[in-house]
Amino acid sequence: MINEDEVIVDLTNAQCWDYLRRQRIGRLAFLADGRIELFPVNYVVDRGELHFLTAGGTKFDAFVRRQDVVFEVDGDLGHLVWSVIVRGIAGVLDPDQKREADARHPIRTYVDTYKPNRVRIEPVLLTGRLLPTPIDRT
Amino acid sequence: MINEDEVIVDLTNAQCWDYLRRQRIGRLAFLADGRIELFPVNYVVDRGELHFLTAGGTKFDAFVRRQDVVFEVDGDLGHLVWSVIVRGIAGVLDPDQKREADARHPIRTYVDTYKPNRVRIEPVLLTGRLLPTPIDRT
Repeated sequence: MINEDEVIVDLTNAQCWDYLRRQRIGRLAFLADGRIELFPVNYVVDRGELHFLTAGGTKFDAFVRRQDVVFEVDGDLGHLVWSVIVRGIAGVLDPDQKREADARHPIRTYVDTYKPNRVRIEPVLLTGRLLPTPIDRT
Repeated sequence: MINEDEVIVDLTNAQCWDYLRRQRIGRLAFLADGRIELFPVNYVVDRGELHFLTAGGTKFDAFVRRQDVVFEVDGDLGHLVWSVIVRGIAGVLDPDQKREADARHPIRTYVDTYKPNRVRIEPVLLTGRLLPTPIDRT
């Protein structure tokens, strides 16, 4: 058995972005009334930000006030798994910004329900790791 | 475009457990020094609890004190995606409990590094949703 720091590779910022562009689902966490909210969302990378859609309501209200968030994305390449954590500030795009961003990078969500709001995460800190998986995972 | 409550199905507790048993990776969130920690872990279901392994260190210290955590697991079945959120309390198994749990339900982690501590999450609240995905996702 080996120690983590012998096998786990830290990613550079550029590598973090490369991996973030490979996925379309991540998990968003933030504090609302002192309680952690955590749920999966579909996202896109747009000009150095992560964007996702919301339907409004309580979750949306948090982002209107600009909100510290943590966003986690991971993927499984068989011989290794990767994970990127983005710490940043979420805020809502105004109608003009939304129109332009929708044209550049439309967000296709798994579930086609009404989500009129486009939220950005402005990254403050990216950390990423590659984890080799030599063991049999069948 | 339809509203969320017309298509999203809430899961019963029993259904949440069925889905939790299908996966082996989830994302754990908790507060440490006022900051959200969020990262993926391999887990098993053991006697109504979720168990995972840790290497020790700062993250481990939080669990020793019994810690409110949120754990999210999701999966993609092609025609639908599911997501289960477990709110609960994490704590460390003592050596006897660990030996017995390891025999019942060994935890195979993707990365075979030294993780001597087995942590339980005692669920307080389970919520789960099924989301049909009629749109083309290719």
